[in-house]
Amino acid sequence: MKIVTVGEIMLRLAPAGYYCFVQADGFGAEYGGGEANVAVSLANFGAESVYVTKLPAHDIGQAAVNALRRYGVDTRYIVRGGERIGIYFMEKGASQRPSKVIYDRKGSAFAESRYEEFRWEDILRDADWLHITGITPALGENTADLTLRLCRAAKERGVKISCDLNYRKKLWTRERARKVMSQVMPYVDVCIANEEDASDVFGIHAANTDVTKGALDKDGYVSVAKQLAERFGCAKVAITLRTSLSASDNLWAGMLYDGEAHFSREYPVHIVDRVGGGDSFAAGLIYALLKGEEAQGAIEFAVAASCLKHTIEGDFNMVGEAQVRALAGGDGSGRVQR
Amino acid sequence: MKIVTVGEIMLRLAPAGYYCFVQADGFGAEYGGGEANVAVSLANFGAESVYVTKLPAHDIGQAAVNALRRYGVDTRYIVRGGERIGIYFMEKGASQRPSKVIYDRKGSAFAESRYEEFRWEDILRDADWLHITGITPALGENTADLTLRLCRAAKERGVKISCDLNYRKKLWTRERARKVMSQVMPYVDVCIANEEDASDVFGIHAANTDVTKGALDKDGYVSVAKQLAERFGCAKVAITLRTSLSASDNLWAGMLYDGEAHFSREYPVHIVDRVGGGDSFAAGLIYALLKGEEAQGAIEFAVAASCLKHTIEGDFNMVGEAQVRALAGGDGSGRVQR
Amino acid sequence: MKIVTVGEIMLRLAPAGYYCFVQADGFGAEYGGGEANVAVSLANFGAESVYVTKLPAHDIGQAAVNALRRYGVDTRYIVRGGERIGIYFMEKGASQRPSKVIYDRKGSAFAESRYEEFRWEDILRDADWLHITGITPALGENTADLTLRLCRAAKERGVKISCDLNYRKKLWTRERARKVMSQVMPYVDVCIANEEDASDVFGIHAANTDVTKGALDKDGYVSVAKQLAERFGCAKVAITLRTSLSASDNLWAGMLYDGEAHFSREYPVHIVDRVGGGDSFAAGLIYALLKGEEAQGAIEFAVAASCLKHTIEGDFNMVGEAQVRALAGGDGSGRVQR
Amino acid sequence: MKIVTVGEIMLRLAPAGYYCFVQADGFGAEYGGGEANVAVSLANFGAESVYVTKLPAHDIGQAAVNALRRYGVDTRYIVRGGERIGIYFMEKGASQRPSKVIYDRKGSAFAESRYEEFRWEDILRDADWLHITGITPALGENTADLTLRLCRAAKERGVKISCDLNYRKKLWTRERARKVMSQVMPYVDVCIANEEDASDVFGIHAANTDVTKGALDKDGYVSVAKQLAERFGCAKVAITLRTSLSASDNLWAGMLYDGEAHFSREYPVHIVDRVGGGDSFAAGLIYALLKGEEAQGAIEFAVAASCLKHTIEGDFNMVGEAQVRALAGGDGSGRVQR
Amino acid sequence: MKIVTVGEIMLRLAPAGYYCFVQADGFGAEYGGGEANVAVSLANFGAESVYVTKLPAHDIGQAAVNALRRYGVDTRYIVRGGERIGIYFMEKGASQRPSKVIYDRKGSAFAESRYEEFRWEDILRDADWLHITGITPALGENTADLTLRLCRAAKERGVKISCDLNYRKKLWTRERARKVMSQVMPYVDVCIANEEDASDVFGIHAANTDVTKGALDKDGYVSVAKQLAERFGCAKVAITLRTSLSASDNLWAGMLYDGEAHFSREYPVHIVDRVGGGDSFAAGLIYALLKGEEAQGAIEFAVAASCLKHTIEGDFNMVGEAQVRALAGGDGSGRVQR
Amino acid sequence: MKIVTVGEIMLRLAPAGYYCFVQADGFGAEYGGGEANVAVSLANFGAESVYVTKLPAHDIGQAAVNALRRYGVDTRYIVRGGERIGIYFMEKGASQRPSKVIYDRKGSAFAESRYEEFRWEDILRDADWLHITGITPALGENTADLTLRLCRAAKERGVKISCDLNYRKKLWTRERARKVMSQVMPYVDVCIANEEDASDVFGIHAANTDVTKGALDKDGYVSVAKQLAERFGCAKVAITLRTSLSASDNLWAGMLYDGEAHFSREYPVHIVDRVGGGDSFAAGLIYALLKGEEAQGAIEFAVAASCLKHTIEGDFNMVGEAQVRALAGGDGSGRVQR
Repeated sequence: MKIVTVGEIMLRLAPAGYYCFVQADGFGAEYGGGEANVAVSLANFGAESVYVTKLPAHDIGQAAVNALRRYGVDTRYIVRGGERIGIYFMEKGASQRPSKVIYDRKGSAFAESRYEEFRWEDILRDADWLHITGITPALGENTADLTLRLCRAAKERGVKISCDLNYRKKLWTRERARKVMSQVMPYVDVCIANEEDASDVFGIHAANTDVTKGALDKDGYVSVAKQLAERFGCAKVAITLRTSLSASDNLWAGMLYDGEAHFSREYPVHIVDRVGGGDSFAAGLIYALLKGEEAQGAIEFAVAASCLKHTIEGDFNMVGEAQVRALAGGDGSGRVQR
Repeated sequence: MKIVTVGEIMLRLAPAGYYCFVQADGFGAEYGGGEANVAVSLANFGAESVYVTKLPAHDIGQAAVNALRRYGVDTRYIVRGGERIGIYFMEKGASQRPSKVIYDRKGSAFAESRYEEFRWEDILRDADWLHITGITPALGENTADLTLRLCRAAKERGVKISCDLNYRKKLWTRERARKVMSQVMPYVDVCIANEEDASDVFGIHAANTDVTKGALDKDGYVSVAKQLAERFGCAKVAITLRTSLSASDNLWAGMLYDGEAHFSREYPVHIVDRVGGGDSFAAGLIYALLKGEEAQGAIEFAVAASCLKHTIEGDFNMVGEAQVRALAGGDGSGRVQR
Repeated sequence: MKIVTVGEIMLRLAPAGYYCFVQADGFGAEYGGGEANVAVSLANFGAESVYVTKLPAHDIGQAAVNALRRYGVDTRYIVRGGERIGIYFMEKGASQRPSKVIYDRKGSAFAESRYEEFRWEDILRDADWLHITGITPALGENTADLTLRLCRAAKERGVKISCDLNYRKKLWTRERARKVMSQVMPYVDVCIANEEDASDVFGIHAANTDVTKGALDKDGYVSVAKQLAERFGCAKVAITLRTSLSASDNLWAGMLYDGEAHFSREYPVHIVDRVGGGDSFAAGLIYALLKGEEAQGAIEFAVAASCLKHTIEGDFNMVGEAQVRALAGGDGSGRVQR
Repeated sequence: MKIVTVGEIMLRLAPAGYYCFVQADGFGAEYGGGEANVAVSLANFGAESVYVTKLPAHDIGQAAVNALRRYGVDTRYIVRGGERIGIYFMEKGASQRPSKVIYDRKGSAFAESRYEEFRWEDILRDADWLHITGITPALGENTADLTLRLCRAAKERGVKISCDLNYRKKLWTRERARKVMSQVMPYVDVCIANEEDASDVFGIHAANTDVTKGALDKDGYVSVAKQLAERFGCAKVAITLRTSLSASDNLWAGMLYDGEAHFSREYPVHIVDRVGGGDSFAAGLIYALLKGEEAQGAIEFAVAASCLKHTIEGDFNMVGEAQVRALAGGDGSGRVQR
Repeated sequence: MKIVTVGEIMLRLAPAGYYCFVQADGFGAEYGGGEANVAVSLANFGAESVYVTKLPAHDIGQAAVNALRRYGVDTRYIVRGGERIGIYFMEKGASQRPSKVIYDRKGSAFAESRYEEFRWEDILRDADWLHITGITPALGENTADLTLRLCRAAKERGVKISCDLNYRKKLWTRERARKVMSQVMPYVDVCIANEEDASDVFGIHAANTDVTKGALDKDGYVSVAKQLAERFGCAKVAITLRTSLSASDNLWAGMLYDGEAHFSREYPVHIVDRVGGGDSFAAGLIYALLKGEEAQGAIEFAVAASCLKHTIEGDFNMVGEAQVRALAGGDGSGRVQR
Repeated sequence: MKIVTVGEIMLRLAPAGYYCFVQADGFGAEYGGGEANVAVSLANFGAESVYVTKLPAHDIGQAAVNALRRYGVDTRYIVRGGERIGIYFMEKGASQRPSKVIYDRKGSAFAESRYEEFRWEDILRDADWLHITGITPALGENTADLTLRLCRAAKERGVKISCDLNYRKKLWTRERARKVMSQVMPYVDVCIANEEDASDVFGIHAANTDVTKGALDKDGYVSVAKQLAERFGCAKVAITLRTSLSASDNLWAGMLYDGEAHFSREYPVHIVDRVGGGDSFAAGLIYALLKGEEAQGAIEFAVAASCLKHTIEGDFNMVGEAQVRALAGGDGSGRVQR
């Protein structure tokens, strides 16, 4: 099971515990990003996970490579060069205080990379799956072009493609996002989104849903998924369902639509670190689908995996398949495992 | 908007996380105290915040000055000299285990300072507001005298005065507190208290309230506020309403009485650090009133500001006006701000 | 009040906060174990607490001795020698992610020690109580023999004996546990267990109880306790009642059976560290019984003590008698103690 | 004594102790840079130190402001806006392993700022001194223009100007440096350099000096200083003399040329953090000259101040005037001050 | 071998590594002081070491007791009560930057304790040795009285007495020191001092010695020791010989005078933490003398022990007898012990 | 360039900085060991480095795998299973205080592994070099057998073999070491040793050398190397030359004998962490030889690489080829690399 994930990986700098940026005299340094998080989670499940990006040739770039290698991701196709590694600063919220993210990713080596720099022939050889997100084309012209050409190349080789819409309003306008993503989507087999993404990017709305109130409307989500599937011809659309009670406590569930809607169990999560929650969902879904799970089993696996991610520090999901199955199988009691 | 705050600032020594005093092999060092916390919160809102105290001329005294300067407090009127800086040790509780505070503040430079040592003429020039608390006169004869003379000087210059009763039973008896505070209160425009303060200091009781049971009686609070306002002629009385479910979870609200009672929204808070919660309430209230907020808007601002303080490590409230308005405006969902 | 506790003490290595084993680049080092935790808690209550074990003659062995001495445990009878100290690795869980424990205790100095190596004559002189657990005989032939002979020696001297069943399935089979513990139990005055222990070791079952579902059946527990008391002639049987809502939140209570059942109040606990919860229960119970508490008072003390343990980092319970009495007396509001 | 310093301030990220970049799982976060270091050192001496820069309006930008305010620097003229704060990564070397610095400063708010954005009229009012370095014009066209116009504006108001050449080969070519700095130098009263700067920027060489061999030739330095003074009409030229025995041990001295050469005492320094060593020399020199010190006294003060900086963590020099005078006065024994 | 040591024990607060006070955002917390350091070192050698002091009844007082117990000191005679524990702040110097110590010990529980509060009868029973220092009588009238009466009581019981002069100029004047210490000295069998102590307290000078220059004159020391021995009738006078090359590097030796002078080997020490160096010398000397070492052996043991202390963090000397003997026996190569 | 290294990898637990074991409340956790250190250093040079060992199937075993993967070591042939991972505790010495190492490696998964468990056919395919050490056969019968059979298999395939004698007296006797190593040596092309190894294992002595005195005798080393080469037919013998001035400062050099002796430059090293120094020498030598360096170039590369290792925390050498060449080429000035 060989899965190729393509995208940026950033240096994540976060104050310890619940300290604010203006209080911090140091930052924990981890590496992550929407696509890298998927690649690491897949490697932790035991899949053959290949990550493709570009990183500067200096030691901080090397540290990012090392962070991926540490968890078993295949980094041999990462190109080294360019000026800088993207950075994001992360301040963890609690209770009514939201987490804050400050991006400093402009001009990163990957954002300025070109399709021709990578060895796609080797990368896609024997690949079963390609995972991309809406962040990569948002980084600039180069990576938008790269995304489209990569989708085409993968499609030609019969590689399945999943795409997490991941709309980032600071990176591009809705108009440009719609234009570019409308070209990408026809190649996508499995589309992953949250309710806002579909609305932001494609103007596809679910009625009666106000995310700040925590109200979620199941029918609305099915309607969004159906519209996405029909407009672009995706075989499957998966939507994450987060009810944000506070920065400390969320409800977490998901839905997989493949013509009909499969809703997962909902978990009340006491949060350790919710960054990467959606990415771990994508990884869980890809892994379960490649393992041949039926729709209900797949969405339960994806949601259990990402529920566990919320209890883990950093961007990366550390859990293995057995842990996910234990939770999906019903034991959420958190009893000590001796 | 120039606000003068006068009082002690202490070195706060706290074990990391939830470690007990007897487990600690180190202490996080911060600086704080009832009045300094107000001054810093005001500076973080963008107000011109002047802090007046006395600190020893050594490096730990300097570190306390620096802690104030770091957040933009004007420290130019702080007098340097005296023997020691007050210290308090803080052990953070959790669930059924209460936080513990050990004071070691006797003989501090400020406690032994005299009114004549400070440049009040300059300090009060163009000041809009003076904030004091019941802690300062409790420190000793010198500071009781200082408090009274300062109130007189401020009143003469038309400076508004707020006072947080902040009764500390380890610093003085109820009898002495009543005697001194009864002289202070006639100068006070805005009195800030919790239900226990009014009872401890002035014997003003609210019926049917048992703080250890978490039962709070709205009518009782209105009655307390009314009695305070009428006995001392305060234009406004503000009361914080804490329901302590456990050391980890509280309900938090407030009431502002200005002839009629204005109750705020109540927040369920999952606590990071509750020390300074009342002080951040005072700062929020002063700021909102100086900004010309109506009573209901002011109490909502004060409570939202102090709700957020409970999610922040240390004594100081780090939030700015925009964050408070976002919460007061209704978004307590804690969703990540990107 | 002299209490002798005999057993292993291990080096406990745990990543900081909620980090996973595979993320950790360091471990907090504490020392603990089922019996040592009881000894330290008793010393923290002010009892004369003697701990007996064997530790290697190197500096890590010394550090274990020091950890006990630090909290006032009498370590003079600890034998030094042997090859290694047992180790356990501990990864703290959160929400749906369970804590993980990895044991590396085989071949420890204590596990390979023999009855003759210890000065039992001196150790038991004037002792009021001996506390052992089912872990010691599970460590091997030597310590099973040691346990039995020690029980006999204590009984001869009129020392009361408590035993926490503490079944560890990785150390021995149910068959061997049953055989050995059936020889030990006739000496035991106070038997401490959880519902699973009785079932695992002696095949004594409570009906209608599924620990992973959090359902607890009071009648079932009484039935288990009664069977234990009757089969082995224990004067008292105490059972801890944990409802594991998640790794972060538990309900915690207990029951003491002395012919009739005395159930304690139940506490909702937001967990800091639940390891050692059962041991702190045993310590609380022993202390309360030796202080002459009636059954209901003793079980309330034991449960309040161990409720507080869940809010404390490490294996050891740091609370003193006054803190326990405050909670048992009804103040679980967690208000700051100044 | 009002001194204005203008330049960038960067976020400095450094692994703890002697860890390498690729080993680090966190970075200490400080703020510093060639000019900011001078401003902080001057404030620590008690001077009125005004710092002018541009920083983004987010919390990391605020943290940089706070770092300056903490030590008493006047930050009121700092402009907020722009995209990012410059960053530099710092790996501390030891013995034969050199320290490594990775810059990521391109596109910083200050680098892209324009002369018109700052309130120079207010900034230069009553200023006694302006300090700039060769880094600012190296950042780009905008800041080269800003530097020149600022020098002109300062000169018109009779403000003394010091400039630390600080050639940075990664920021600009020697050709461009020579062209721009040749326009700046005629305004400079006090030029600060090391032997390499003069050579790199102006092709002014000292004979017989090989810095990697640690050989320093006094006559060569005098010749360089004389050439600089004569070519550009500087009243004074100061040169730092570092003999790098290893990353852990250096010899440190300086020379001030004002027509004749004044060499300081040489200190053998066991290094804690040598970054900012040259900047603390500049600050010491400016302070001593403004205090009216004669040339020999000034160079001794500057070298003693910067000797002490090598023993302090971070970019900033924390020492006060008294500490510097104690060392310059001859007590380098490092005996405990009680 | 039972040795009683009497004196204060303080909370020591020190920034991590080489950080300055004004940079610190936390302090390592240890407990120490001139006498407590001796008691712990003796316990680490395996002696029966009894420590007598008074500490407040709160948790920080308890932590000080625990710090002593941890290393095996007998703390049963420590009286609990009084208002506060003395504190000292410690900033570690490096190279030319001296360490700084800020004392905040006024009004400590021990300083205000009286002779009658302690159970001297039990404390001195079977004691072989009593160790005191010149710090205790310097704390105030109470403890000066306590010291004298204690010396008398010890003498009556035939207990040997050692006294480390330890002159602290911030605690008392030379005049008062001379007056009080002249009464104490006649009871002292072994007097420990450095060259400055004898001069400061008794006006006994050694010619030709300038400690800031690092010049030490052997004859001068012998002359000082002889004068001390003769004036007060001490059997032995020991003097530590420190040549402070810098805060990072010292030369360290000692001399024991018992009618004739015995100089030890001199060690070049690269310093980790030099606080407590003199105290560890005293402990080494007492231990060696009680073990029956000849003068030369005793001074070599004392100096080797205290040489090793300089390589250990905190006030306490952690080394055991074997480590000291290995160094005194000639192996200072620092090769790894596997 | 494919190099296979076979051996144990242990969990290394070390107190922070210079803290002693008995002071530590936590341990930095790294992974290392004589052979693993070689493998990582080779990977950091860019070689294809394959590591073969056996590790338990739990998360701590996984963390050891991850530590290798992080730096690019090929871990695919590591067998998972067995009971435990070997552990070693490391206390860093300073000045006269030696470092201490406590081993707890008995019963490790690798020590109990058998030759048949590994896929040698795949492992040795296309391998250029096999590196082993004297530690592996010392672990027990199984691994002694494994070592011999592996040497034979490698020889058959024409793989070059290097062996670091690394005599560990706690693992086996000299007699057994001599017997086993005498069977291994005939397969070895490059033998690496220090002077003590040759003497301990084979009774081959160098005259006039006393390591505790720091005296090194060049002729003696040549004689030892020559004897080793001649007795066992090794093409090359490399010897590391350490002069231990103290735990903080060493002199470091090496010699390569290939019929004639090639001595390297000697470096005075101020030590950060000297563990793994010899292993980094082996890695440097293997790399240089495989790169086709002449003898003098190879020994200079090996010594420069391992000189740098002494400045790096942990067991692993982090430096790349360029850094080594810079030092070997003569720049040991430690100047900052910007």
